[in-house]
Amino acid sequence: MTYSAPIADMRFALEACADLRSLAERYPELDVDTLVAILESAGQLASETLAPINRSGDRAGVTLANDVVTTAPGFREAYDAYKAGGWQGLAADPAYGGQGLPRAVALAVMETVHSANMSFGLLPMLTLGAIEAIETHGALDQKQLYLEKLITGEWSGTMNLTEPQAGSDLGALTTKAVPQADGSYAITGQKIFITWGEHDLTPNIIHLVLARIEGAPPGSKGISMFIVPKFRDEDGSRNAVRCIGLEEKMGIHASPTCTMAYEGAQGWLIGEENRGLAAMFTMMNAARLHVGMEGVAVAEAAYQKALSYARERTQSGPIINHPDVRRMLMTMRAKIQAGRALCYATAVAADRGDHAREDLLTPLAKAWSTDLGVEAASLGVQIHGGMGFVEEGGAAQFYRDARIAPIYEGTNGIQALDLYGRKLLGDRGEAMRVLIEEARAFAPIRAAADVLAEATDYMLAALRDDALAGASAYLALAGKIACGTLWAQGLQRAPNADQQRLFDFYVVTSMSRAPSRLAEIKLGAAALADFAL
Amino acid sequence: MTYSAPIADMRFALEACADLRSLAERYPELDVDTLVAILESAGQLASETLAPINRSGDRAGVTLANDVVTTAPGFREAYDAYKAGGWQGLAADPAYGGQGLPRAVALAVMETVHSANMSFGLLPMLTLGAIEAIETHGALDQKQLYLEKLITGEWSGTMNLTEPQAGSDLGALTTKAVPQADGSYAITGQKIFITWGEHDLTPNIIHLVLARIEGAPPGSKGISMFIVPKFRDEDGSRNAVRCIGLEEKMGIHASPTCTMAYEGAQGWLIGEENRGLAAMFTMMNAARLHVGMEGVAVAEAAYQKALSYARERTQSGPIINHPDVRRMLMTMRAKIQAGRALCYATAVAADRGDHAREDLLTPLAKAWSTDLGVEAASLGVQIHGGMGFVEEGGAAQFYRDARIAPIYEGTNGIQALDLYGRKLLGDRGEAMRVLIEEARAFAPIRAAADVLAEATDYMLAALRDDALAGASAYLALAGKIACGTLWAQGLQRAPNADQQRLFDFYVVTSMSRAPSRLAEIKLGAAALADFAL
Repeated sequence: MTYSAPIADMRFALEACADLRSLAERYPELDVDTLVAILESAGQLASETLAPINRSGDRAGVTLANDVVTTAPGFREAYDAYKAGGWQGLAADPAYGGQGLPRAVALAVMETVHSANMSFGLLPMLTLGAIEAIETHGALDQKQLYLEKLITGEWSGTMNLTEPQAGSDLGALTTKAVPQADGSYAITGQKIFITWGEHDLTPNIIHLVLARIEGAPPGSKGISMFIVPKFRDEDGSRNAVRCIGLEEKMGIHASPTCTMAYEGAQGWLIGEENRGLAAMFTMMNAARLHVGMEGVAVAEAAYQKALSYARERTQSGPIINHPDVRRMLMTMRAKIQAGRALCYATAVAADRGDHAREDLLTPLAKAWSTDLGVEAASLGVQIHGGMGFVEEGGAAQFYRDARIAPIYEGTNGIQALDLYGRKLLGDRGEAMRVLIEEARAFAPIRAAADVLAEATDYMLAALRDDALAGASAYLALAGKIACGTLWAQGLQRAPNADQQRLFDFYVVTSMSRAPSRLAEIKLGAAALADFAL
Repeated sequence: MTYSAPIADMRFALEACADLRSLAERYPELDVDTLVAILESAGQLASETLAPINRSGDRAGVTLANDVVTTAPGFREAYDAYKAGGWQGLAADPAYGGQGLPRAVALAVMETVHSANMSFGLLPMLTLGAIEAIETHGALDQKQLYLEKLITGEWSGTMNLTEPQAGSDLGALTTKAVPQADGSYAITGQKIFITWGEHDLTPNIIHLVLARIEGAPPGSKGISMFIVPKFRDEDGSRNAVRCIGLEEKMGIHASPTCTMAYEGAQGWLIGEENRGLAAMFTMMNAARLHVGMEGVAVAEAAYQKALSYARERTQSGPIINHPDVRRMLMTMRAKIQAGRALCYATAVAADRGDHAREDLLTPLAKAWSTDLGVEAASLGVQIHGGMGFVEEGGAAQFYRDARIAPIYEGTNGIQALDLYGRKLLGDRGEAMRVLIEEARAFAPIRAAADVLAEATDYMLAALRDDALAGASAYLALAGKIACGTLWAQGLQRAPNADQQRLFDFYVVTSMSRAPSRLAEIKLGAAALADFAL
């Protein structure tokens, strides 16, 4: 494993495309030297500490015995190094030990972590979610109890949403919360697919759990959020929550995916009663963006591996000299850089408090970047030939790991639904039209922007089912154009010959297909409904 | 596992699209009742015998100890049933016990085998290759020695091409063949990635091995083909060939992928000295078509699994009612039917002796169908949501298994090179122009056909490196149009409302993107060469 953080590409995406400097007023202490030092130091942690245990972690996996989940060899030392570096609190509130840096910088740091070791990266990513939830919705005493220990990385956090019958439809969840005399709640139910729900890397784990208070309305309006620590705050005694099973998954083997049993576990309401879903959604934007970043990150790792293989492997000369191999490598790198710009720009919008832009870009960043993750990982396998299919080659792991990202934190189909139902209908296309106007400023993507304008009018006017039939194609088109626009803006801010050539390649191979997307978007529900599947 | 052979779709593809009836004169004994009986019987073997051991075989894998490869539980019984059914000899020479049916029918039978159990299917597929090689290139005594036992399935066959340094570039192989006094050769060298190279399902294994006779010219013009039986013909004694390693692969776990050591093994020249590569290429067409069929087959299995999950899984109603889920299912089914028509039509062309059409369609069938296999398997995972990533769900295995098909029997990049270098340049585009004229007869695909015409002119006129830079995009375009043409011809021969709707969907979602392919095809080598990857 030879991952090395692509600092130049990252900086171009962050500074030029995502316009990090637009945050100068809010974050006056962040100068270029600091930024570079942070990225380089994160890259070093990633390549020296996290990448070396990526493949061994894939092979070793995790085990469950007597309620204890044992992680793969080397993960404890790696987590200790991560914790010691202060990485967990990069963007967190300085009042609780955080460094108060932009989330965009923390996201870029997480890119290197995910590239080096996607299984590992999920642990800090989930803790970040818990930190944000408590920062935003927690009462003062909850902040005082949990934030510092989460921000230092001493404890980790989880999100407990899914139940066997409640996946995309969280309104169907049945985990119960019964009020207790002391103001806490007794939580009972079973949660599945809980990432890092149990492990041996931190002495305590703080679960954020969606449950229904006895007597609450059915559906999504009766869901509340609770904090359930593995060990109770007052006396350190063990709470009635435990891991009763681990999923055997296709990838991210070193990341425990737990079935959690809550058997009258003591929990505390966070935020308002019955507003748990809304609270969860404020976290969801960040979580979705981080998953999008994972897609880019695993693609970058796959790209670096394939590039190095293509340079070394000789078949009638080094295979990197074959145009088709170069085409695959450039396709990977161009899409990675496009997705990187999109993810970083979403974070900068969040940091700038530009919620309209953040809300619009989030489903694009999640879905478009995770689809590219799968595509790039598959190209990485292909470049390796037979060695790509052999586990020893290393490319196969990226292909297996990458496949989860289009699924979790809301499937990409759910993202398309979100883009249409919440974002587009939410502001009658206003934020999208702003993006389209920005795109139209650039000749190479103007035609595509015009298509997006027409598609947007169609989506807004269409019957709901017709719009839903075209929603994924619409998201793919919008994602492509958002990336192209950010990239073009980056080149305008900071001309760069290498980036220009990569952008030109992206325009020819990716943007040129935009016009033909319209037929797919306008397919209509009847074409799907009439057919006897 | 609930695979059930899609007889109606198969028959439409075989009879209407691939025009099986055009073989009536050559195969007068094949009537519709016989065909249906064969397909149904094969479907029964697939669903009742092969599908039930697909997942258990994936889990158990294969093991090597003391030169013996032990296959997964149930594989011996399944192979015995396959052998007893006489399936191996369906299209083989009746003079040696075959049934002399069209290869297209045997291919359709293999589709059901691959759908049910891709690991298993590789064993008869490789034996088919050995049968064809010996039928075409073997001397009479070689035919008499081997054919009957291969055709009955009593023995199995392998193809030994790849060496560590010789993959796509077979000219680099170094396995040596030293002439012996008795007319045989002593073969010494190491072969890798040998599918079913060693196993415990047949008492003998017949290896077809590429090697270089001492003193032969270097490169591809000094390669000869040899028959190396595991047990010698005359006295049944063990030959000096053994399996010294098994690859740990991402998928097709139940299929042993062997490293074979030849240590002075006794072999016999088959065909002419130094013409081994040409001999191998005549087999290659068939092998490549079969791999294309695997792509369709695994996609069909993934489709059936996803369809059944989408009907059962409830999230705000059965998820099959969600337009985006229906879109994914229809995308799978439409592409599967397109690829099926392409593969069957390639086999019918071979049966008809239409070599120009067979040669043209073979790289399309191989690459286009295996790419769709990966895409469909990925959609199958997506439809399953979280359960798609969990091995227990079953969708993950198709995603892992499907990934090998774009790689072996010549990577899809090599197919693009073959389409351009051998096929298009070979006849200056004549066979392609015939296909384009056929496409132009149908209004919904005429625009795409015009693009293909323009792309073909470009490829023929372009400098080699420019053509190579666009070769994969050109193949993707040609494959799409070949499928569309065959499908349109099928609907003309046998109007069918269900197939028509599926075809219309294919035209909107797949063919409509054809026009924009041109930019990719014309990308040019400079766009790739200049960039510092």
